[in-house]
Amino acid sequence: MESNHRGKQSLVFPQPPAVLSYASVAGKKESEGPLRDSFDVVSKDTSFGEKTWEKAETQMQKTAIARALEKADLQESDIHCAYVGDLLNQCIGSTFSMRNNGVPTFGLYGACSTMAESLLLASMSVSGGYAKRALALTSSHFASSERQYRFPLGYGGQRTPTAQWTVTGAGAVILGQQGDGPFIRRATVGSIVDKGIKDAANMGAAMAPAAFETIRAHLDDFSLAPEDYDVIVTGDLGKFGSQLLVDLLEREGIRIGERHEDCGVLIFDIESQDMHCGGSGCGCSASVLCGHLFGRLKKGEINNLLFCGTGAMLSPISTQQGESIPSVCHAVSIHNERG
Amino acid sequence: MESNHRGKQSLVFPQPPAVLSYASVAGKKESEGPLRDSFDVVSKDTSFGEKTWEKAETQMQKTAIARALEKADLQESDIHCAYVGDLLNQCIGSTFSMRNNGVPTFGLYGACSTMAESLLLASMSVSGGYAKRALALTSSHFASSERQYRFPLGYGGQRTPTAQWTVTGAGAVILGQQGDGPFIRRATVGSIVDKGIKDAANMGAAMAPAAFETIRAHLDDFSLAPEDYDVIVTGDLGKFGSQLLVDLLEREGIRIGERHEDCGVLIFDIESQDMHCGGSGCGCSASVLCGHLFGRLKKGEINNLLFCGTGAMLSPISTQQGESIPSVCHAVSIHNERG
Repeated sequence: MESNHRGKQSLVFPQPPAVLSYASVAGKKESEGPLRDSFDVVSKDTSFGEKTWEKAETQMQKTAIARALEKADLQESDIHCAYVGDLLNQCIGSTFSMRNNGVPTFGLYGACSTMAESLLLASMSVSGGYAKRALALTSSHFASSERQYRFPLGYGGQRTPTAQWTVTGAGAVILGQQGDGPFIRRATVGSIVDKGIKDAANMGAAMAPAAFETIRAHLDDFSLAPEDYDVIVTGDLGKFGSQLLVDLLEREGIRIGERHEDCGVLIFDIESQDMHCGGSGCGCSASVLCGHLFGRLKKGEINNLLFCGTGAMLSPISTQQGESIPSVCHAVSIHNERG
Repeated sequence: MESNHRGKQSLVFPQPPAVLSYASVAGKKESEGPLRDSFDVVSKDTSFGEKTWEKAETQMQKTAIARALEKADLQESDIHCAYVGDLLNQCIGSTFSMRNNGVPTFGLYGACSTMAESLLLASMSVSGGYAKRALALTSSHFASSERQYRFPLGYGGQRTPTAQWTVTGAGAVILGQQGDGPFIRRATVGSIVDKGIKDAANMGAAMAPAAFETIRAHLDDFSLAPEDYDVIVTGDLGKFGSQLLVDLLEREGIRIGERHEDCGVLIFDIESQDMHCGGSGCGCSASVLCGHLFGRLKKGEINNLLFCGTGAMLSPISTQQGESIPSVCHAVSIHNERG
């Protein structure tokens, strides 16, 4: 049997799937940040015309799907399977966005790593011939997240210096067997890493060790150097977690500093928007990938991108029960050349 | 490129993965039911030695993994990837059971369809050469579910006739490229179906249309008849949902009555255990598959099984916001012959 497994935890796509289309949706605050021109659709009031924040999140996802389909001149019936997830309890953002649309759907939970996880599994489906076209989709909404994780907001808890701000945003990617690219060539699946961080307002510190392990494994498993990528981008480590990641890798002699970027840092003007350590949430890396990053690939500003989704897999209950924060990082390599 | 996609929403595994090992864990009430002799491990107090119900659920999963590995004489490091999920908010049962074990892990949310969803994706990984061995794992715990979905319990709400009882149980399956079987040959991925049922105490009615659509698509996509399977088993439609499913299929001329079984009906003696419509929860179909059903396959009592996981993708918030209950059903075919 053909082996597409590499080293400890990586895999290669023998028929690299092509990115047929992508779309991003963002909220008001995101539309005031440095990436404002990269989003397809922006809502000036973040309600997206709905009466509850949860329904607004579903509406964001539907908008992202519709726009991605439209750009590729496809219908829902052209999608053979979808990988979808979000941060909400029981992932209702995604379930309701896919309701009755007839698209075979796998529900995921990967916290803020969901864009990378869904892209990885969609790539596996397409490269393995299980689907001609697959959709990867996720979102987060500041207000639905605040309600869930930090309710009641009326307490007005002070945000600490390491706090991050949940992005209101969604991203959708459609992959296919044929196309002009970019292409997904390789991936590394993360394991659940927990170094004992208990501060739910410092998720960057909790997630950095997971990103460290996945990036190191990726380079090892494929005998690559950081220089083989133009950009190594993490999901939402924020300013503090990003510095930790760079330091952890440097101790092993792996220097990614000059080519490392973080979606949580990219999406906001951290100082003027008072964002503390930056953005977070599934929608952070999703909306940055599906706008700014794919845009730079398309323009040829970069040609080889390692996209590393990072997720903190805590819940309010696990925190209340004194648990530390388990984290995960999945990496997907995206290239202008099919390879 | 090889096409492993069939019809509207199905796929075929050209190298059918072999079931290398499986294990089931169950609670006290389950150990008093008709399947009592089929579980590997039973806890007489359902705490599994832990101080909280959520930690007990994690402990059940760890026990299921350990027992499945032991039976196949494997270590955690032999597993190339795991597909895991549960019902808890942010899927903490699964995240904490995989914490720091070094196994590359994909988090899923498929509600009570998770055993079928994880088995399907694990099969895709193994058949596609992305993993030599893959783990599929899920669980549910009566008390952690009650706390989450029906808190505060002190209200003592009366259970309605269509209510189901969340099973305390876990199941783990290890798949590999080589082995004596059973083997996974085919699968059908479900879409999200919602026919407008709003009663969260009647999940059988909400899920039956999803099971109907997936089973019909499965038979259509592969040009099969119900007689091609010895048993067509649904996850946890319960008594009422099972009857609905049989009726819905019969209207289309598809008669599955005599070969249909339901894990939620099998696991309890519904009358004497006062179970109303039967069991539910991710752990229901997981513990029935990983004990009773694989046991019957191994003994040759049945040779061809269609395992249909059913999930109701609601949340307490979606119910409070007046939403109906979206559902999903994934089907996986399991055979004694590799085919």
